[in-house]
Amino acid sequence: MQESHHQNADLLLINGLVLTLDDADQRFNPGAVAIGGGEIIEVGPSSDLAAKYRAAKSLNVEGCVVLPGLINGHTHAAMTLFRGLADDLPLMEWLQDHIFPAEQKLTADWVYWGTLLACAEMIQSGTTTFCDMYLFEHKVAEAAKAAGMRALVGEVLYDFPSPHYGLIENGLSFTESLIQEWKDDPLIRIAVEPHAIYTCSPDLLKRCSNLAERHGVPLIMHLSETETEVRQSLDQYGLSPVAHLEHLGLLNSRLIADHCVALSPEDMEWLAKRQVQVIHNPESNMKLASGIAPVPRLVEMGINVALGTDGCASNNDLDLFGEMDSCAKLHKVANLDPTALPARLALKMATRNGAKAIGLEEKLGTLTPGSWADVIVVDFRKPHLTPLYEPVSHLVYAARGADVRHSIIHGRLVMEDRNLLTIDINEVMDHVRIFAKTLRS
Amino acid sequence: MQESHHQNADLLLINGLVLTLDDADQRFNPGAVAIGGGEIIEVGPSSDLAAKYRAAKSLNVEGCVVLPGLINGHTHAAMTLFRGLADDLPLMEWLQDHIFPAEQKLTADWVYWGTLLACAEMIQSGTTTFCDMYLFEHKVAEAAKAAGMRALVGEVLYDFPSPHYGLIENGLSFTESLIQEWKDDPLIRIAVEPHAIYTCSPDLLKRCSNLAERHGVPLIMHLSETETEVRQSLDQYGLSPVAHLEHLGLLNSRLIADHCVALSPEDMEWLAKRQVQVIHNPESNMKLASGIAPVPRLVEMGINVALGTDGCASNNDLDLFGEMDSCAKLHKVANLDPTALPARLALKMATRNGAKAIGLEEKLGTLTPGSWADVIVVDFRKPHLTPLYEPVSHLVYAARGADVRHSIIHGRLVMEDRNLLTIDINEVMDHVRIFAKTLRS
Repeated sequence: MQESHHQNADLLLINGLVLTLDDADQRFNPGAVAIGGGEIIEVGPSSDLAAKYRAAKSLNVEGCVVLPGLINGHTHAAMTLFRGLADDLPLMEWLQDHIFPAEQKLTADWVYWGTLLACAEMIQSGTTTFCDMYLFEHKVAEAAKAAGMRALVGEVLYDFPSPHYGLIENGLSFTESLIQEWKDDPLIRIAVEPHAIYTCSPDLLKRCSNLAERHGVPLIMHLSETETEVRQSLDQYGLSPVAHLEHLGLLNSRLIADHCVALSPEDMEWLAKRQVQVIHNPESNMKLASGIAPVPRLVEMGINVALGTDGCASNNDLDLFGEMDSCAKLHKVANLDPTALPARLALKMATRNGAKAIGLEEKLGTLTPGSWADVIVVDFRKPHLTPLYEPVSHLVYAARGADVRHSIIHGRLVMEDRNLLTIDINEVMDHVRIFAKTLRS
Repeated sequence: MQESHHQNADLLLINGLVLTLDDADQRFNPGAVAIGGGEIIEVGPSSDLAAKYRAAKSLNVEGCVVLPGLINGHTHAAMTLFRGLADDLPLMEWLQDHIFPAEQKLTADWVYWGTLLACAEMIQSGTTTFCDMYLFEHKVAEAAKAAGMRALVGEVLYDFPSPHYGLIENGLSFTESLIQEWKDDPLIRIAVEPHAIYTCSPDLLKRCSNLAERHGVPLIMHLSETETEVRQSLDQYGLSPVAHLEHLGLLNSRLIADHCVALSPEDMEWLAKRQVQVIHNPESNMKLASGIAPVPRLVEMGINVALGTDGCASNNDLDLFGEMDSCAKLHKVANLDPTALPARLALKMATRNGAKAIGLEEKLGTLTPGSWADVIVVDFRKPHLTPLYEPVSHLVYAARGADVRHSIIHGRLVMEDRNLLTIDINEVMDHVRIFAKTLRS
């Protein structure tokens, strides 16, 4: 019987230009990816895999580029609710007159709908994993799970009372209950997330760090986002924010530090020595005028730097394709060096470095047998992606989220031909419009 | 008879959110635009215009934003042929080892196909007018005309022999013949285009300026793109590039100066005093590491600054939505001021300031009765454009070219529901792919 020679697969992508982004930068064209049990079974020449596998579903992706799903290393997903609410304002006016009052109106339900909207946007722009920090994070986990997205989430913690959990004691216990609740989930993981050094006492930071260590989960916080933060830290502690964390014993490879814009040479040495994970958010840093993080130097020093969009109030979208482009261009002009931050590095920051930052380098960020099957398919048969000399150049400098055609997360097709399969997008948009209307009134 | 009360229109857009971008920033929601004879007849409330006009064609644009078509103030359209051919290289290596050799393979035909590809991309991303500088510009004019796009084109002129026209004498006479040939065309206009001060002798620059003045057409050139250009000019002429042009009598409101990155305070004073038109190309300046043009300062001084993408070899796309976003964000971080270059100004740069730069402020850049009907419709019913507090914010910070749904140029629908009506895009992409293949071999 011929058929007994076939192996089973859940999903087979055939006839694509497959970029594994692995160490050897293996490419197959025409290439195929066989997926089963949530994992990548095999990657190789299209004809070989087409002959070898019998798949429950097969997608012909001719003219498309197949690559690992993008990883958004830092966002506040539910802030889609505030997209375009206020822009182009001085930082304190923006926060105190617009964002903080708007956040007072948040409820668990609104965070759920805002996060689902974010998931829709992220899936439609090629993101398969996101790291989130916000309020009502149980709802963020629920929304991501409903959308079929992979997420690392954690309730934001600080000294003052939260609109969600009230006193910080409740915040810590809430975080611990989240960790318990989701500990066996294939998609959702929990982190401990103190907001920043200027909103968290040294004691709270140490308690957070201990909690993260006890459960073996990441510790996530904003760090050295602006010169103002550095000045305040020097005033209050006589130390830079990075040195302050080193002093508290918080710097290690489990710490995911968002932003890291304002760094002294000594700060960089500490980040390198302790192998801290850095998340760079170029568009937010540009829009809020925070400054330009010294990313080429950090990379040179062997620090793992991944990419994030930050929230929609300061970007104002969640498109990592645009973020890769901005990242590659910003560091060229900042260094007056057109060789700085090449396209290949920008793409690596949005894939493999993101996987490493969240401690999942073995399972995400490349198309490798045994990895989780988080895969995106980008349609290159478009004027702005023609002709094709080098796919990585196009992915960074010319493609945008709207060019993503299919998206697969943990082996599940969540978008096919741009149709969202896990989210009723009209229902979600209707809900969010109602929120915006009530916010305005 | 009821019907005798109706006025005729060629095209009626109804039920949109109409942004006129006029002095009073008039908006109509739901609004309508009536178009006839290539011009805008009336803009106003949807119900009024729907009752008043009988249109040959009517488009319901509910959920969409209607605004003036975008104006790309500087590009080399046919360089789509080299999109992604070489990136992330030192400037001289990029030019001498990749771009110049590739350009040796150009023919009139390839320029035609490359330009048509650019027109397809520009129409699909909301651009209705572009200013071009390249070789074989008769083919650029032909392609733009075939695509139904508005264009200001001119053959690039320099001291050394051109792969197209040979000796400069031929270049000047060729330019003059283009001016004659297209002088009555509603879409295509011709400019005189010396390349730059480092490729054109003072004598050539003066002859170009005289030619432009004699025919009343714009003079277009690259100016002060890099510090290197400034240093060379100081060495050779003892003057900055801007001062050199002032000395030659070339600075006036007919001069369209591309880039203007490296400017001294005195240079800026001259540009302001002579009312030179400046085209800012932020993404190209970033990618080539040319530097950051002092745009907020130029605008403050009353200089008209418009927006361009530059060519696809240094961007690598022609999407003015992305360019507006980059522009607004770059100047915020460059000035460490989140109020610098607000969204409203970025949009004005890409519309009205572009119209002014090419001497067509009376006919383009706003939706005003009597203006030429260059109109785009952007579909806001998408996750990344939800919710909607302020449309201008979304147009700059969240929308991308792919969100443009319909495009109208000079009253003609050139794209409907993202289908190009004037260009056989598969034929064009096939041609360009053949060029890329021959270039590679």
